[in-house]
Order: sequence, then structure tokens, then C-alpha cells
Amino acid sequence: MSHKTHADMNQFESRDGQLVIAGYSVEEVVAIAGQTPCYVYDRSVIKQNVDRLRRFFPKVSLHYAIKANPMPAVVNYLSHQVDGLDVASAKELHTALSTGISPSKVSFAGPGKSEQELTMAIFSGITINIESITELKRIITIADSHDRVANIALRLNPDFELKSSGMKMGGGPQQFGIDVEQLDQVFELLEHPKLNFMGLHIFTGSQNLNAGSIITAHNSIFALVARLHAEYGFSLKHLNIGGGFGIPYFPGDKLLDLEPIAENLNKLIDEHQSLLNDCELILELGRYLVGNAGIYLCQITDKKVSRGQTYLIANGGLHHHLAASGNFGQVIRKNYPVAIANRMQQSDTELVNIVGPLCTPLDILANKMELPKAQIGDWVAVYQSGAYGFTASPRDFLSHPHPVELLL
Amino acid sequence: MSHKTHADMNQFESRDGQLVIAGYSVEEVVAIAGQTPCYVYDRSVIKQNVDRLRRFFPKVSLHYAIKANPMPAVVNYLSHQVDGLDVASAKELHTALSTGISPSKVSFAGPGKSEQELTMAIFSGITINIESITELKRIITIADSHDRVANIALRLNPDFELKSSGMKMGGGPQQFGIDVEQLDQVFELLEHPKLNFMGLHIFTGSQNLNAGSIITAHNSIFALVARLHAEYGFSLKHLNIGGGFGIPYFPGDKLLDLEPIAENLNKLIDEHQSLLNDCELILELGRYLVGNAGIYLCQITDKKVSRGQTYLIANGGLHHHLAASGNFGQVIRKNYPVAIANRMQQSDTELVNIVGPLCTPLDILANKMELPKAQIGDWVAVYQSGAYGFTASPRDFLSHPHPVELLL
Repeated sequence: MSHKTHADMNQFESRDGQLVIAGYSVEEVVAIAGQTPCYVYDRSVIKQNVDRLRRFFPKVSLHYAIKANPMPAVVNYLSHQVDGLDVASAKELHTALSTGISPSKVSFAGPGKSEQELTMAIFSGITINIESITELKRIITIADSHDRVANIALRLNPDFELKSSGMKMGGGPQQFGIDVEQLDQVFELLEHPKLNFMGLHIFTGSQNLNAGSIITAHNSIFALVARLHAEYGFSLKHLNIGGGFGIPYFPGDKLLDLEPIAENLNKLIDEHQSLLNDCELILELGRYLVGNAGIYLCQITDKKVSRGQTYLIANGGLHHHLAASGNFGQVIRKNYPVAIANRMQQSDTELVNIVGPLCTPLDILANKMELPKAQIGDWVAVYQSGAYGFTASPRDFLSHPHPVELLL
Repeated sequence: MSHKTHADMNQFESRDGQLVIAGYSVEEVVAIAGQTPCYVYDRSVIKQNVDRLRRFFPKVSLHYAIKANPMPAVVNYLSHQVDGLDVASAKELHTALSTGISPSKVSFAGPGKSEQELTMAIFSGITINIESITELKRIITIADSHDRVANIALRLNPDFELKSSGMKMGGGPQQFGIDVEQLDQVFELLEHPKLNFMGLHIFTGSQNLNAGSIITAHNSIFALVARLHAEYGFSLKHLNIGGGFGIPYFPGDKLLDLEPIAENLNKLIDEHQSLLNDCELILELGRYLVGNAGIYLCQITDKKVSRGQTYLIANGGLHHHLAASGNFGQVIRKNYPVAIANRMQQSDTELVNIVGPLCTPLDILANKMELPKAQIGDWVAVYQSGAYGFTASPRDFLSHPHPVELLL
């Protein structure tokens, strides 16, 4: 099927020519959603992702980074599947706590946390990943003034970089974390009686499809932590080595090979027994847990030929799915995997552009893609839409109706 | 003042070192807003924009394209200043009608309008800019079934292109408008008794700072319309020649010179008296009317030095102002004009990065800018934020609080 080749999309089947999500045909999904556009997430695909990670990383705790998809139903589902949740704002903190998860399993990262956010975190008993010395001092002030203990971990900006990641978030000058060179001052402050030191958080980058560079990062992280351990003699309750596991989006992207990463990590665990004594080793993943479980569905409302090019006009686009339009962090626009969801087996194809309803040429879902010949009323499915889709899009741009979100 | 040189920002003064918006110091603005981040729009700057256009284009009607800034207060204010409103969705249509403006002064453009949107438009009596033959047929069906007359205008995709515009929206294959080559079929359909043909809409591109290329586009539009007039013999109640007038954002951008555009347009009007007999000539502007009237304000919550670079962490960023972060339609990121709003006269500067609170390296408001030395608690002002700011941003990304909007 030439129209769905450019990423491995076999997490979704088709039946009688219709895309199937969570056992429902696309027609049924749209009927249940009550409208297009909609985002539909398949919990069984999320489960498969968790199971795969458990198989490869049996000795490691899994955390879910809510920012990837903060839909409360998704967070609630994952709270029962993984070992902890990571939040990045007050509202995410509330979503996490509302699942009923133990606050001891929740951590809070992100630069520039407000006094209110820090107060919420201290009162709820979650762990705060410290991003700067100012933040550490602010926490001490709040903890002192309320006579409360703050659980804190240090987010480190390492002195190495992760290669091949979609976004580099560690190494060199950074807005994230504390440079390891500044730890003398930090460990002095950590002596404060109202601080309960939990561990370290080292996140080097996101959306990495190269197992080799993740292995290198893990090696560097363990070497760094061992060096710091020798220097400062701390004992860790947890070590969060981030995630950064990528998923395929574009032509040529391959599924990340977990096996060598797992092998290497097991070796590192064996080599650092004393360091990891009574220490929970955490992989914190967002996109990898939910990205391939979501599909964005919209409907074709018009079809026109303009000077030799065929345009399918959809009722959704950039305002609902900024990343798929190519306007979010991409330098050169590439097509997300897209299908005509009610013509999955049709062999009669044509070259089309799928565009949205906005009055801007940026509103593109597919640029010159060979897809089954479609008609008005057909449904367009954008795969790999479970992470950084709904919330990472400017939904009020041109004030069209918002998409519905559904976990099936 | 080296820190505000890279665009002409003299629409805002400063007083005692504080930025002044609508007569209020930044401290007063924040007190009135009740929080940062906030978007503040200055109605006197909007008025200046209208007055300037009136001075240069006394024979032309001015329309406001709501999509640039659909805040109801802004739309309401402009509804009394300009001659018409252009909407791009059902909600924008409701906003327009709710100002009390006559429906005869409202037009609706945009590809893929839904049956519901078209029905709303027909019942309210506004003018629909037709984007495709399918849409025209759909309108006929709705008008027939409800025994209602539909006011329609044709959006044309011309057979020429506008050079130097920020975004090209006419010429070549397009999702917008009807190719002029397809007009035979369209004018046949226009014979239908339930259709009231109002005129033509030709929009060639947006954010153009080059007067010469706007002049060329106007010349081409008039030549095209004259040619079509000779061929089809229609009579026009209006001719909407779009807008596309740009505003300066980046270093090196100059204010658009309206004088040659006005001179040329007056000449075109004189030359086409018979064509324009009883025809309203419309300039439809969005960004040009409101863009320079808006400021995005946020507050510095942390300041850190990481490996020689200084970071000011603000409580706002990409999620509120995607364009200023460089992630909306820009190929190479450039800094928007930014100031430390409570240190407008301070000569002691330093090289800084201003970043937002999100856990992504994309969250940048200023990259290596020389700005007055700032401290935690200071306010950051992002200029030129009155258009495509608030609604064009993924405000739920990481679930931080939304900014307040205020028209002063």
C-alpha cells in the first residue's frame, strides 16, 4: 500500500477498506466522536508501548511526561500503567494528582516555576526538579515560611551533548537545569533541613531515533553521575535519565531499536550497583508512550483542481495540528503519514495536496502526496498524532470549532 | 536607544524609564490587567493606522479582516472606524454581527466553508466570497431549499503573482479562489435567480513591505478586472483588492511607504471610471490595522548564567506568542522587537537570551539580544504583537495559564 509506506503504521489495521481504531471502523469512530475534526487515541496501542518498554527494561521505572498529551483520560490511563508522572505546570500537576497517583511518584520539571507552582508542589509532596540556584533558594524560603519539607531533585545540565536528537536540551549553555560546574554551591544549599534530596534528573534531548546516540548519552550520564557521586558522596533515591526515545514521522524514519539500548543499560546497571543501591532508575517518556496511539481525523469538504494541481480541502488543519502542517520546529516541511481513512485498500491513486480551511498557505496537511482518489465526504487520517498535537496547536486561529478528543 | 532600533517602534513612548501604553505606564498596565502575561492593545494606535490610511486612500473603503485579531473589543472598535469587516469562520461571523454592523458590510472568505457556515451567511445576508465551483453549487442548493437570496462575490485566483510578499496567496495553483480560466462555467451558474452577484475579491499575498510590488499587483488586478469586464460584461457593486500591507518586525524592515501606492491607486481609479461606476473599491487589511498596536507583556521570573550565556526566564513565551518565538512561518528565526519595559532609558546593557517556561528549546523570545541589564520581576515587552499573536498561539501547550487580553 504505497500511500502509507513512509512510516511503520502497522499499529492500526484496516477492515473493508476502513481504517480501524480500537476495534472501531473510522465511520464508527466519527459517529462516536459526534464530529470531525477529532483526535482519537487508542489505549491498546499505548498499552503495547508500555508492554514493549517493560519487556526491554524490566529493571527500570517508567514515568510519563504529561506534556506530550495531557488529556485527563490519557493521563489517568497511564497512571495505572507506569510508575510515575512528570508535570510541567500547575494544571498538569492538578491533572496528575487527580488520577489518584501517590504524590511520591510525581515530579515537576521546567524553567521559571512560579512561587505559586512551587508552593503547590511543596504542599502536595511531589518532587521538584530544580532548574536553577534561584529556584532552589525560592523553595527554601517557601518551605521555611510554611514549615514544610520540600522534596527536591536536581536537574543537571551535563557537560556533554546528545547527538542526533530532534531537540538538544542538555550540554553547552542551556536554559534547562543546573550546570554541573555550579554544584558546589548547590550541595551547600542542600544542607538546609527543610530540603529532602531525592535524586538527579538528566535529560539530554528529545525525539531521537538513533539507538547509538542514546547509548552514548546513557554511558555519559552514568559516567557523570559516578564522577559526581565520588565527588559529593550523595545517595540517590532516584536517578531520572530522561527519555528522548523518538517515533518515526517522515519518509526514511525507522522505528527506534530498543534492544541495544536495553542491553547497554543493563550493563550500566550491573556496573554501577553501589551507585544504584536503593535507587530507582527512571526512564521518563512522553512522545514514545502516546505518539503512535493517536490519529487526527478530519473530513474533505471540497475538491478542486487549480492549474493542474488537485486540492482536497479538509475541515481541519494547522489550527488543530500545527506539527503536521510543518510549522512547529521543522526547518523543511515534510509530510506526516496521512491516509484516506475510508479508502484504505483502494489502488486507484492520484497526486494531491490536502489543505485546511484557513486563509493561509501554511495550512497544509499533505503536500503532493500520492493517495487513493478521494471525494468530498471522505475522511483524512493523520497518523502519529498522539503527542504534541491537540495542545500544541493554535486552536483559536481563525476561530473555527475545536476538535473533539477521545480515548478509545 | 540601541535596544529598540530594529523596527520603528515610535508608536509607543516611555516615561520615567517605563514603557507607556495608551497613557498608562507598564506598571499601571500590569496592575489593570491583573496579571502577566498579557496582551495589551492601544486603540489610539489603531486609530492612527486608520487615519493614515484615510489620508492616503480617501476614495477607497477600508475593511478589517478579523482573523488578524478577533478580540471582540478590537472588532467592535474597528467596526466604527472602518467601512466593513471580513470574517473567516462562523465564530468570526458572530463576532462581526454582534458589533451591530450592517450585514451588507460583512464578507466571508476562506476555503472549504461548511454547509452550516454557508447557511449562517445566507440567512444573515452577508456577502460570501466564493472559493470554488463546488462552493457556488452548494450555495445555490441552500438558497433554493430555503428560498433565500445569497449575496456572493467571486474570489479570483489571478494569472499573475505578487512578488516580495511574506506569503503568496494568488497566482499559480492555489487552494484559494477560482482560477480565472474557469470563469465561463462560473458566470453561467451566476445566472441563477437566487444569487445576487456583488463583485470580485482578489488577494495576492500578505505582509508585503515593498511598495513597488504592491503597485505592480494593483496594476495587474485592474488590468485583469478590465479584461474580465470586457469579456463577461458584469457590473460590480464592489471590488476588493485585498491588502497585504506589511508592518516591520525584524532588523532591516522598513515601514511600508503608502504614498506611491496611493498615487498609483488614484491613477488606476481615474483610468477605470466606467468599470468603477457605482462600485465600492475596498482595501481589506488585517495586520496593518492592528499589528503595531499590540504589545505582549510578560515578567522575568529567573535569571541564570549557563556557561557564559545569560538567560532571562519569563513567565510567557512560545505558548502565548508563537510568531515571536520564531516558530510560525519563519524559515530562519529572527528576533521580534523586544524591550525591558521598566528600563526603557537604562544605558547599562548586556547580551541576553529571553526564554519562556516551557520544557523546549523552541521557547525563545529573544536570542542573543543586547538589552538593558534586567532583574527578576522586570517586565518584557514584545512589540508588533497586535496581529496573529493571542489566537495564533498554542495556548494550552504545557497547560500554563492563558494571557489576559486588554484594549486600552
